[in-house]
Amino acid sequence: MLHDAGSWHFEFNGLVALVRERLLRLAGLSRADGWETILLQGSGTFGVEAIFQSCVPSNGKVAVLTNGAYGERMVKMLAQAGIEHSVVRVSEERPTEPQMLTSLLERDAAITHVAGVHCETTTGILNPIESLGKVAKAHGKIFIVDTMSSFGGMVIDFAACGIDFLVSSPNKCLEGVPGFCFVLCRRQTLEASEGCARSLSLDLLAQLRGFESNGQFRFTPPTHALLAFHQALEELEQEGGIAGRSARYRKNHQTLIGGMSRLGLHPYLAPEVQSYMITAFGYPAQGHFSFPVFYRMLSERGFIIYPGKMTRVNTFRIGTIGRLFPADIEQLVQAIGSVLTEMQRNEMPSKDPEILVKT
Amino acid sequence: MLHDAGSWHFEFNGLVALVRERLLRLAGLSRADGWETILLQGSGTFGVEAIFQSCVPSNGKVAVLTNGAYGERMVKMLAQAGIEHSVVRVSEERPTEPQMLTSLLERDAAITHVAGVHCETTTGILNPIESLGKVAKAHGKIFIVDTMSSFGGMVIDFAACGIDFLVSSPNKCLEGVPGFCFVLCRRQTLEASEGCARSLSLDLLAQLRGFESNGQFRFTPPTHALLAFHQALEELEQEGGIAGRSARYRKNHQTLIGGMSRLGLHPYLAPEVQSYMITAFGYPAQGHFSFPVFYRMLSERGFIIYPGKMTRVNTFRIGTIGRLFPADIEQLVQAIGSVLTEMQRNEMPSKDPEILVKT
Repeated sequence: MLHDAGSWHFEFNGLVALVRERLLRLAGLSRADGWETILLQGSGTFGVEAIFQSCVPSNGKVAVLTNGAYGERMVKMLAQAGIEHSVVRVSEERPTEPQMLTSLLERDAAITHVAGVHCETTTGILNPIESLGKVAKAHGKIFIVDTMSSFGGMVIDFAACGIDFLVSSPNKCLEGVPGFCFVLCRRQTLEASEGCARSLSLDLLAQLRGFESNGQFRFTPPTHALLAFHQALEELEQEGGIAGRSARYRKNHQTLIGGMSRLGLHPYLAPEVQSYMITAFGYPAQGHFSFPVFYRMLSERGFIIYPGKMTRVNTFRIGTIGRLFPADIEQLVQAIGSVLTEMQRNEMPSKDPEILVKT
Repeated sequence: MLHDAGSWHFEFNGLVALVRERLLRLAGLSRADGWETILLQGSGTFGVEAIFQSCVPSNGKVAVLTNGAYGERMVKMLAQAGIEHSVVRVSEERPTEPQMLTSLLERDAAITHVAGVHCETTTGILNPIESLGKVAKAHGKIFIVDTMSSFGGMVIDFAACGIDFLVSSPNKCLEGVPGFCFVLCRRQTLEASEGCARSLSLDLLAQLRGFESNGQFRFTPPTHALLAFHQALEELEQEGGIAGRSARYRKNHQTLIGGMSRLGLHPYLAPEVQSYMITAFGYPAQGHFSFPVFYRMLSERGFIIYPGKMTRVNTFRIGTIGRLFPADIEQLVQAIGSVLTEMQRNEMPSKDPEILVKT
């Protein structure tokens, strides 16, 4: 990351081509079978929106499956872009039910696309993308999946899930740094959307054609983030690919669950729908638990956790992905134990310190 | 850049607030006078498009002033977003003439916004944004300026130019790394555009409100690029701000022009419209000049130059911004001299090697 690469220099373009190729291979896909990788500047949200802005025709309609903040974000971006949509919404602790999608698709023939989130980072819940994809395909719909928090850390079977567009980001399970996102898609489906794009920056087909015409991003790429990503993909391979990485993440998660349980803290979700990427815990049963105090005391010990993102329940979240190992998780659990003891022992502050955390 | 910052951690948010504040100060603006800085993920193009997608109402119309690829890109993004627009186009070696804008605005009362490029990177030409802005303001229009290649390297007088929206990027004269862009704008003008945004990711007002509500980017920012940018702003201050930096860039440019002239190579543009950021040179008067050969031989000597971007003339371009000093430019000129001699001495290859360069 400390090298300033020329964004159209042939060496850098070679690296971009390699990264695109490796992402396909990682997903078990190939160009020969009609698949493409498109890298796009911006965060993962830019990639999700790019699919909608580029590929849904003006007479298209999207069914959004939501049980958390990232599903709701899809709804919001479709509304803002003036794209017709229907919403299948379940509460945050429940996975989306394929039967609800079936009913919607039977009721509403105008729907052309189905979009959902694999691992909803709001809670860490896993949605059944294989069953949902089968319903979408049985009705002849294009299936779009946001796998921001799962791609690279779980095997995703594109054929079994009937995925047409998958979007993810380098800075979760792939352990790169933020700065861009990527879309894996069927070339034919993307090409069929020619002329649909409502935005130049977010035009996926134009971005693909840019790579194909001269190997370059159409607009200045985050070159340092791309160099870092290439290295991150090397490290993934050294770890034994998705199999090796998912084994480590599972161990991290088990270590966390075991340790937190000894502290009397339990995951909010039922184990059968809980991913091993991120886990939401309910607040401890203390008289007054201040998350900002808890957060700051943990951060002083070198541990940065996530505030909750659920709408009706007070939770905090702990991620078990990234360059973390079970020994790190054990140290985190010890720190949580000692912080909670200290918080109980001390008088609680009358009000939260003024720090900014996502609510 | 080697620190993994938490994108909503209070330390990182403090740095984001500082960066936003310093950009305003650098531009000679202040929040008290109604100005705001908005940082946005993606390349500079994303920022230009964000202004159009967020701030032009559905019954708005944009007059685009163009004399190069970046002006033409504005036209393209307006067309793709379905936003009404008119174009004032002059040829690439001429600056936009204020009189042409006056005529257009007198003819077409539907125009609400005027958008142009300050230093057009296609050629390195400087457009007279002060005269153009005065025309725009005299007709009561909102004035949008792309200063991608000039901000930080030239003093820009916002009041004299009548600028309402300025967009630039950290990775040109500010010597940061690519990964985001920024918009400086009048708060009142931005707020008046409430409800106009056609995109969630590119919604400038929502992005501003995100910073104001909790200090955070709405969506994952390129944290490493932001850390680098903070350092880059420190270095700019150490160099004596825009005055110090522009003096160095001017010296770089003069060194280049003098050296190239000794080699018989001259800038394509007239000196009075030529910026000191980037300079386009016509091909040398050799029987057969191969730019790809020239480019590769220079890159083997450690110098990366730019291919031309003009539509009707064969040029190559040399940038004189970034962490470069007159001594670097002298070495470049020496390398160009020796490469040209070698190219003349050797038999030219019958065809260009297969390397990818932007055409």
